[in-house]
Amino acid sequence: MSSFENVTVLTKANVYFDGKVTSRTVVFADGTKKTLGILMPGEYEFGTDAKEIMEIQSGELKVLLPGSSEWISISGQGEFTVPANSKFKLEVSVVSDYICSYINE
Amino acid sequence: MSSFENVTVLTKANVYFDGKVTSRTVVFADGTKKTLGILMPGEYEFGTDAKEIMEIQSGELKVLLPGSSEWISISGQGEFTVPANSKFKLEVSVVSDYICSYINE
Repeated sequence: MSSFENVTVLTKANVYFDGKVTSRTVVFADGTKKTLGILMPGEYEFGTDAKEIMEIQSGELKVLLPGSSEWISISGQGEFTVPANSKFKLEVSVVSDYICSYINE
Repeated sequence: MSSFENVTVLTKANVYFDGKVTSRTVVFADGTKKTLGILMPGEYEFGTDAKEIMEIQSGELKVLLPGSSEWISISGQGEFTVPANSKFKLEVSVVSDYICSYINE
C-alpha cells in the first residue's frame, strides 16, 4: 500500500467548508509539504498560494482551472496542476480522496 | 503545533459512512498505529478490534460506551477508551477532529 515514510504529520486537521473539505498536513525531511485530503460532494472554490499538484486517488469530480472555461472530469484517478496565486473551482459528485503537493518555485 | 514525527502515513484514506467518517493511518517506528480522523455530524456505530483510545481534538459529540446506558458528552477536547472487540455509538453534532490510538494488549 502506498505510503509516505519518515515524515512528520500535524495532528490537527485543516477544515474548510464546514468540514466538507478536510486535510492532514504531511511534512517531508526536505521541508516540502503535502496534504492528504477528503472532498465531500459539493461545489467549492479554492485559492492557491504555492503552485499545487492535485492527485485524485479515488472519487469523481470536475475541475475548472484558472483561465479556462472548460471543466475537466476526473473519475477514479487523475491529476491536475494549479498555478500559484490563482483560483480554481471543483464540483465533487462522489467523495474524493486526494494528495495535494505544494511546489515552491 | 502538535505533530507526529518520523512516522509513515498511508496515502489512501479510510472512508466509512459515505465519507462522513474518514481517517488517515499513521504508523510509528515501534509498529504501533494511530488514525487521524474527521467525524461529520451524524450518528454512527463502530466496532473495535484492538482497544481504542479516542482523543477528540475539537468538535462536539456524545459517546455511548459498550455496556453503558449513559451518553458522555464531549465539547471541544476530551478522551474516552473503548475495550477491544466491542461496539460503541457516537452522536456527532459538530465536525470533530480525532486521534485514535490502537492498543494491542
